[in-house]
Amino acid sequence: MTHKLALIGFGTVGQGLAEILRDKGAALRNNLGFDAQIVAISDFIKGSLYHPGGLDIAKLLEVVQSTGKLDAYPDSPGLVRGWDSLTTIRQSNADTVVEVAYTDINTGQPAIDHCRAAFISGKNVVMSNKGPVALAYQELSALAKGNNVRWGFEGTVMSGTPALRMPLVSLAGNDIREVRGIFNGTTNYILTKMEEGMSYEAALKQAQELGYAEADPTADVEGFDALGKVVILANVIMNAPLTKKDVACQGISQLTLEDIARAKAAGKRWKLIARCSKEGDRVTASVAPEMVSLSDPLASIMGATNAITYECDLAGPITLVGAGAGRVETGFSILIDLINIHRGNI
Amino acid sequence: MTHKLALIGFGTVGQGLAEILRDKGAALRNNLGFDAQIVAISDFIKGSLYHPGGLDIAKLLEVVQSTGKLDAYPDSPGLVRGWDSLTTIRQSNADTVVEVAYTDINTGQPAIDHCRAAFISGKNVVMSNKGPVALAYQELSALAKGNNVRWGFEGTVMSGTPALRMPLVSLAGNDIREVRGIFNGTTNYILTKMEEGMSYEAALKQAQELGYAEADPTADVEGFDALGKVVILANVIMNAPLTKKDVACQGISQLTLEDIARAKAAGKRWKLIARCSKEGDRVTASVAPEMVSLSDPLASIMGATNAITYECDLAGPITLVGAGAGRVETGFSILIDLINIHRGNI
Repeated sequence: MTHKLALIGFGTVGQGLAEILRDKGAALRNNLGFDAQIVAISDFIKGSLYHPGGLDIAKLLEVVQSTGKLDAYPDSPGLVRGWDSLTTIRQSNADTVVEVAYTDINTGQPAIDHCRAAFISGKNVVMSNKGPVALAYQELSALAKGNNVRWGFEGTVMSGTPALRMPLVSLAGNDIREVRGIFNGTTNYILTKMEEGMSYEAALKQAQELGYAEADPTADVEGFDALGKVVILANVIMNAPLTKKDVACQGISQLTLEDIARAKAAGKRWKLIARCSKEGDRVTASVAPEMVSLSDPLASIMGATNAITYECDLAGPITLVGAGAGRVETGFSILIDLINIHRGNI
Repeated sequence: MTHKLALIGFGTVGQGLAEILRDKGAALRNNLGFDAQIVAISDFIKGSLYHPGGLDIAKLLEVVQSTGKLDAYPDSPGLVRGWDSLTTIRQSNADTVVEVAYTDINTGQPAIDHCRAAFISGKNVVMSNKGPVALAYQELSALAKGNNVRWGFEGTVMSGTPALRMPLVSLAGNDIREVRGIFNGTTNYILTKMEEGMSYEAALKQAQELGYAEADPTADVEGFDALGKVVILANVIMNAPLTKKDVACQGISQLTLEDIARAKAAGKRWKLIARCSKEGDRVTASVAPEMVSLSDPLASIMGATNAITYECDLAGPITLVGAGAGRVETGFSILIDLINIHRGNI
């Protein structure tokens, strides 16, 4: 059965996914029996297209990458233009809504409303934007379940590195007593450079030049990005309904080269660690710089790489290391959710 | 539906699994809807029991751990004693055969015959013994498929660390161009100690005293253990029908403290790396000591820990780190296969 997709948003992640489907569509069909079709795109700026029989992915990419818009996509019988996001979600024949539009980081909107509309319309949602999961996991996961549809968001914690699906599928049966990790590439890059002797200010500037850090780096350096991710882990992996305000959060902006030297002298290394722990049934979470022993697998994670350690009662400590961002990686995070919805797997 | 198990063998791994089912049975039922029952045990030395309605797990463990045998397990109506392994596999009402008996490392027997009998009888098989997978993957996986049953062997590569299921479920859709890893805790422990200045001979002796290395350490130190694991990875992850004779294999017994010093001077570290790579459609594999750059996640794996890196075209390099052996860890590797058979997942 062909999996029909409606893309809400056609920016970096949406185009990244479309490129994967264009370039690897045949391999995905032959190797995994997974066949996907884009039936709709609705982008606030680039325009909107819907065809119940499917759009031509190569043509979509060619048009948007040469003109910045979808207007030049050729007409054909049955093609509909101009539907807004909610109409696309409600009226299209898509099986799954790929929510990759711009979202307000403080409110999670309009993505939360998009999820609600999709679930009520009997459509799955797949996304890489952490806002709706960090802010409304309990409501939205119940709504998806109640409507017998799926909600995939693997990419929200470590992009294409499977920080959520790996423990849910491959470590099931363990009591996971603690999850701790490095979830922010920008701050880890800055800490790596400071260890090489660069000042905080110079390292931040270099991270901005490399495109790791935003012009306003607050969300990264003050730990708010990692905070959203640890809230997701608490809810999804530990089944604890934590919200952002339950998490103590400290960033790296106060760390000095003297602090770095002090850690080195102690055989340790500063890392911005997001942590979520169970004591009895109580789950607590925090984000803070910690001096990590060099024998800890997290200590060896340098540059913009991410990593997570799960403390399991049966399997012991298990660590997963990989990219935490990137166009292709995040496109893959959407793909892997789609593949596992197709398979009927978690 | 209760999942009925027949255990062929009741040594370390079998008892480890039974302890998990005894201690976590209620949690597995409540959290995962997974309910398992041991209906049969057949052990060449300890004796055999079968009851179609299920055996009392706590009593089984009590009896075997106090007497070394199953003879003192109490009689009850319907209890059958003395069935050999093949009769147990063919005649019991088990859904799944847990094959944890002693296996000849060179022939894979009797485990291979046990798999054949189970699949033909319409029963799943779960095992942690790498012999049958390394020696007969192509035949046995086809036989399982043809009989519409499942074959689980997560524990054969890295024990409870999900080296097989993680990529199959969570990295599907990637072209995995290379897999490389540290799959032998004994040799990694020896290399760690040599880096601390200990001679090869002294480090091996310490590994033997700690129970990491066998009295005859050949399989570990000459790379044969890692060789079997890379053959499994080639077949399962890369779908390439490699056999042991296709793999160039070199161990660590020739490494000297001078070699260790040479690596250190170059900013590197010796690791026994098992590697499996694709060039075009051609898959090759090798086991050999390599000088690994300290920035490689595999370089930071010290002591008896195992690790694996998957080079993915979409998700980038993904590394998984964890225990590669252990009674509870290997018991868990059996459990996770059972849970995912129950779920209908890979």
